[in-house]
Amino acid sequence: MHVMVIGAAGMIGRKLVEKIAASPGALGYDVEALTLVDVVAPPVPDALSPIAAALSLDLSAQGVAEELVAKRPDVIFHLAAIVSGEAEADFDLGYRVNLDGTRNLFEAIRHEGARAPYAPRVIFASSIAVFGEPFPERIGDDFFTTPLTSYGTQKAICELLLADYTRKGFFDGIGIRLPTICIRPGKPNKAASGFFSNILREPLAGQEAVLPVDESVRHWFASPRSAVGFFVHAARMDTSRIGPRRNLTMPGLSALVGEEIEALGRIAGPKAVALIRREPDPVIRRIVSGWATDFDARRASELGFRAETNFDEIIRIHIEDELGGRI
Amino acid sequence: MHVMVIGAAGMIGRKLVEKIAASPGALGYDVEALTLVDVVAPPVPDALSPIAAALSLDLSAQGVAEELVAKRPDVIFHLAAIVSGEAEADFDLGYRVNLDGTRNLFEAIRHEGARAPYAPRVIFASSIAVFGEPFPERIGDDFFTTPLTSYGTQKAICELLLADYTRKGFFDGIGIRLPTICIRPGKPNKAASGFFSNILREPLAGQEAVLPVDESVRHWFASPRSAVGFFVHAARMDTSRIGPRRNLTMPGLSALVGEEIEALGRIAGPKAVALIRREPDPVIRRIVSGWATDFDARRASELGFRAETNFDEIIRIHIEDELGGRI
Repeated sequence: MHVMVIGAAGMIGRKLVEKIAASPGALGYDVEALTLVDVVAPPVPDALSPIAAALSLDLSAQGVAEELVAKRPDVIFHLAAIVSGEAEADFDLGYRVNLDGTRNLFEAIRHEGARAPYAPRVIFASSIAVFGEPFPERIGDDFFTTPLTSYGTQKAICELLLADYTRKGFFDGIGIRLPTICIRPGKPNKAASGFFSNILREPLAGQEAVLPVDESVRHWFASPRSAVGFFVHAARMDTSRIGPRRNLTMPGLSALVGEEIEALGRIAGPKAVALIRREPDPVIRRIVSGWATDFDARRASELGFRAETNFDEIIRIHIEDELGGRI
Repeated sequence: MHVMVIGAAGMIGRKLVEKIAASPGALGYDVEALTLVDVVAPPVPDALSPIAAALSLDLSAQGVAEELVAKRPDVIFHLAAIVSGEAEADFDLGYRVNLDGTRNLFEAIRHEGARAPYAPRVIFASSIAVFGEPFPERIGDDFFTTPLTSYGTQKAICELLLADYTRKGFFDGIGIRLPTICIRPGKPNKAASGFFSNILREPLAGQEAVLPVDESVRHWFASPRSAVGFFVHAARMDTSRIGPRRNLTMPGLSALVGEEIEALGRIAGPKAVALIRREPDPVIRRIVSGWATDFDARRASELGFRAETNFDEIIRIHIEDELGGRI
C-alpha cells in the first residue's frame, strides 16, 4: 500500500509517521511506499528512508494536488492547515489553504478516478472548532455546526465536501474532529489554548508556567498518542460501518483545569504544582469561555475510536513519549 | 434603496418582483432602483419599468459577480441555483453554479467593501435539502446538516460561508431554508416532489393528476405567497435580533398527502378529488421516504416569519393568486 501524509511536518503528522516507523503493521497492511508532504520538507525517520519520499509542496498552489494524486496513493492523510488564529487574521490565506487546498485535493482525486478507477481512503483532520456557542451541556453527535471562526467554517465546509465526495464514490473519506491535544510537546506558544498544555509540560520539566484562567474552566482533551491512534484507526477500520455521516467527533476527556493540576500533583508532587503561576488574563478567559466543554462522542466510540479517561493517563503518556519515561 | 434580485426569472424570483411592483412599500423602504438578473432575461412588471433593469447574466461566469456588485445594491436577494436533480446528475455544473457562483458573489461584496465601506443585506435561498435522513420526528433548529445530495451539500456550504462573511462584517446575511413550495403554479413537471402540487393544481383546473405515493406520506410545505413573505420579511427585519446563527429553517405546514386531498374535497368537492389517479411508483416512494417530514422552526417563528397552518389556506392562496379567485 502507498500511504501519503499531507501536513507531515506538523506535530500530529510527525507523530503519525513515527508510529508507522515504529509499528510497520499499525495500519493493518504493509506500507510499501510513503509520501510525506508539507510546505517545509517533512522529516523522514531512518527506518522509513528506503520507502519514503519527502516533498516540500503547497497543496493550495496550482497543479500540486494533481501531481500528488497522480502517484495514486491508496491512503491519504490530510492534516495540512493554517491554524485558527492565523486563518482568522488572514481571511484570504485561511480560505486558500484550508478550503481551496482541500477542495483541490478532492477534485484531483475525482479527476484521477475518471481516468481509471481510483478511490483512495482519505482521512481528514477536522476540529471541534466546527461548533460555536451556545452549546448544550454535552454536545451530541447530531448537534449542528455553527462555527464562530473562519477556521471552523473552513473545516465544516471540508467536512461537507468529504461526505459528498464519499457518497458519490469518488473516495472513501473519514473526517476526524480532534479534541484539544494535550500535552502538546515543544515550547509554550501564544495560542489561546496553550496554557492547557503549558501548566503540565513546563512544571514536569521544572519550569514555571502561567495559568490565565480559573481552575473551574472545563475543556475537551486527548493526548497526542490518542490523536495518532484516531488516524491509524481511521486508516484500517471497516468504513462500511460508518454510513453516510462521515465526520466524527472523536472521543476525549472532559476535564477541569483544576483536575489537570490535581493529576500533576499526584504524579509530580507539590513542587511541580507550585510552579504554576496564576495570572488571570481577561482576554484569554473570554476566548476560552466560548469553547465547547463536553461531548457525547457516541458514534466514534461505537466505531472503535479511543481516548484517555483521566488526566493522570494524559500526563503519563507525555512522560513516556516525550520525557523518556522519567521526570 | 437599490434592490437586486439574482435568479429573478425563477418562480419565487418572479413572484417576489411582482410583490414589489404591487406593494411598493413592502420592503419597508422606497425601492429607487431594481436590478433583475438571471441566465435568461427576467420579466419586468410594467409598474417597475421606470426603475428596473433586467440583465441576462450567469453569476458563475468570470467577472459577473464583480460587475453586479459594482452597482452597490443595498439589498441582494440571491435565489439563483441549479435544481436538485440537475445538480445530482451534473456534479461540475452544480458545484460551479450553486457553490462557486454564490462564493463569487460573496467575494465580490467583500472586495467592493475593501475599496469603500459597503455591507449590503444578502438574503440567500437555502433549502431543507441541507438535512439528510435519518431524522428525529421533528427537526429542531440545532439539528445538524448532513445532506444526501450534492445540491443539499452546496446549499449547506453556502450557509456556512454566509454566516462567516456576516460575522466578519462583509455583509448582513440571512439564509432562508425553504419548505417544499406548494401549490407550485405552472405545468406538471418530472421533479420527484411534483405530485404534491399536481394533485391539487390539476384537479382545481379540471384536469387529472397522478398520485404516486400513499396518502400516509407526510411532508413539509409552504405556499409561494409565504415564500415571498419570507424574503420580504428578511429584507426588512432587524437583523441584530438574529445573532450569529444566520441560517433559519422557515416555518411551514407538516401535513399528510391525505390531508391535502381532504382539503381539496372541502374546497372543490368530490369531483375534483375523483380526478386524482393513484399510480404507485416505487422509485418516487423511495426518494420521498428520505425527505424530512416535520420541523420545529421555533427561531424563525420567533423572528416573525409566518407560513400557513392548514392545507385549506394553501389551496385558497392558489385560487386567489393563480386562478383569479375562482374555480
